[in-house]
Amino acid sequence: MGRVFNFSAGPATLPEPVLEIAQKELLDFKGTGMSVMEISHRSAAFTEVIEKAEADLRTLMNIPENYKVLFLQGGASSQFAMVPLNLMTTNKKADYINTGQWSKKAIAEGKRFGSVNVVASSEDKVFNYIPETNRQMFDPAADYVHITSNNTIYGTTYPELPDTGDVPIVADMSSNILGQVYDVSKFGLIYAGAQKNVGPAGMAIVIIREDLIGHAMDIAPVMFNYETHANAGSRYNTPPCFAIYMAGLVFEWLLDLGGVPAMEEVNREKAAWLYDFLDESKIFKSTVEGIHRSIMNVPFVLPNDELNAQFIKEATDAGLTTLKGHRTVGGMRASIYNAMPPEGVKKLVAFMKQFEVNNS
Amino acid sequence: MGRVFNFSAGPATLPEPVLEIAQKELLDFKGTGMSVMEISHRSAAFTEVIEKAEADLRTLMNIPENYKVLFLQGGASSQFAMVPLNLMTTNKKADYINTGQWSKKAIAEGKRFGSVNVVASSEDKVFNYIPETNRQMFDPAADYVHITSNNTIYGTTYPELPDTGDVPIVADMSSNILGQVYDVSKFGLIYAGAQKNVGPAGMAIVIIREDLIGHAMDIAPVMFNYETHANAGSRYNTPPCFAIYMAGLVFEWLLDLGGVPAMEEVNREKAAWLYDFLDESKIFKSTVEGIHRSIMNVPFVLPNDELNAQFIKEATDAGLTTLKGHRTVGGMRASIYNAMPPEGVKKLVAFMKQFEVNNS
Repeated sequence: MGRVFNFSAGPATLPEPVLEIAQKELLDFKGTGMSVMEISHRSAAFTEVIEKAEADLRTLMNIPENYKVLFLQGGASSQFAMVPLNLMTTNKKADYINTGQWSKKAIAEGKRFGSVNVVASSEDKVFNYIPETNRQMFDPAADYVHITSNNTIYGTTYPELPDTGDVPIVADMSSNILGQVYDVSKFGLIYAGAQKNVGPAGMAIVIIREDLIGHAMDIAPVMFNYETHANAGSRYNTPPCFAIYMAGLVFEWLLDLGGVPAMEEVNREKAAWLYDFLDESKIFKSTVEGIHRSIMNVPFVLPNDELNAQFIKEATDAGLTTLKGHRTVGGMRASIYNAMPPEGVKKLVAFMKQFEVNNS
Repeated sequence: MGRVFNFSAGPATLPEPVLEIAQKELLDFKGTGMSVMEISHRSAAFTEVIEKAEADLRTLMNIPENYKVLFLQGGASSQFAMVPLNLMTTNKKADYINTGQWSKKAIAEGKRFGSVNVVASSEDKVFNYIPETNRQMFDPAADYVHITSNNTIYGTTYPELPDTGDVPIVADMSSNILGQVYDVSKFGLIYAGAQKNVGPAGMAIVIIREDLIGHAMDIAPVMFNYETHANAGSRYNTPPCFAIYMAGLVFEWLLDLGGVPAMEEVNREKAAWLYDFLDESKIFKSTVEGIHRSIMNVPFVLPNDELNAQFIKEATDAGLTTLKGHRTVGGMRASIYNAMPPEGVKKLVAFMKQFEVNNS
């Protein structure tokens, strides 16, 4: 069959031009006579891959020089432990904001390694908003404040970063890294699993301010110590070479398209088409209001489960796939990361309009 | 350029038919209209991939039913900590045999989590042999005995498994898993980074006897607890989907070729061609003697560094690449894993013979 428009929350759609390059050079990477999967991670050819990927990511996110960029394994779930094992080491306490399932997992793992204070939560309303905070709510002696910048399941995002004073913000940015502009200097640490907005699964990006490196707990495994990877340029052991290569191709693709500011503009437009229709529709309903709406993940519901199921089936038949929402929210969810072409969102909105006509 | 014969120690050469399948379906996996990198790890399509990969690996290694198979991230280096964090928990001590750099790393990490006794070592002779052991040397109260079944750098392998009595053997099998037949029931746990003899980097295989699961230390991160992954069928979080898919294709390729016994026969033949020539050559010399010789990694040296360098250069020009030995051994190393065709080894031996004629 032809390529579909894939609205999966992750692993998610990848830019078709990137897949085409990977396909073309899969058996012979740049004249080496080897696949990029077959070359040594210490070879000149792979050194160029990983160094260019880092340089391009630095350009894309305007990462200051006093931050290290790490390409690690184990996903964001490993970061849930790695963050406290490395950072909850001065006053042994940290503040967390609970905005969904992933925040909760980060909190649970944090509690195992120190004192966690949940400053605010939106659990009372199935996480359909971002709780308000102010500087007075945060403990100035906390080692960090942990947030989930975008909540994949619930489709929410911070309209602005919390004011934590001098306490470094640690952000799980798995579902909106590179999807909108952030000022990296406002964070102590950013981490993101790759499989939503960066590349294939099997790689996590960590961007960490240098002064936060080197204070790991004694109980941290060598592989869970940021210093290990920072000192070795992410090649302490064999890194996930193919995932890094793919991410590098995505970074080049993003730069060609004008970088993150240009991408954010497109993403806001794509999201607006959906939200505008949801706000005017008589049968479709957005599950998140106003300023907390994510531009990456757009959950929506129909009046009953029967219609939801019918919609998902008909959409799939029309080449609009993986629209089923998370079981805790129900209904549908359109994940419209960078790699989802505007054309795909247009087609989805047109399909929703027609569905409404057919079912009203 | 055309494909070369790549003797890299890892990431290493992959079977060309496997790369060709991956290339063909890179933009459309089995009619889904999506790349295998773009489909949800919880989808039916990926469930089939991971379940078939496990089933095929079970067939290939004849894995008993009371063992779990896990596909994890973080490489063997993460296992250096995960093993003690999960297994060094009854008597809090373990025996290790030191047969090279990777053993040493496993020992160093083990010492951070309990009492490690190095029972035997071959460090006195740059690890060019496997030290003899007998049952009396092992502590019957040790939680496990750790070995490195094949030493990539030094080209050594155990002629037979140590007799550890009732103490479970834990083996780092990164460089010879699936390259020769092992009786899995003789091990408590087998682990292997994928990038030598299985698939691309970014995935590690763990085969663990079920009774060894569920005893992790409190300080183990959730992601470093075997129970987490065993309970979730290796999908507690997003697994390295593409690496698992590639490994699955390699497993199918191995089954088509007759499985591990057939592969071992071919591997022994490939290795014999090299060792036979090394033993008769007047200028090339094997660095390992007799029964300790690996059939996966074959290090060899010429009389001086100048000749070594000349050989590596001329071999590369002839399409025989990545033959430089590890700096601690010097000279050359031919890694001849499953995916290295007999033709490649034949060509290498012929090239070595001609080199000897030209330089005698």
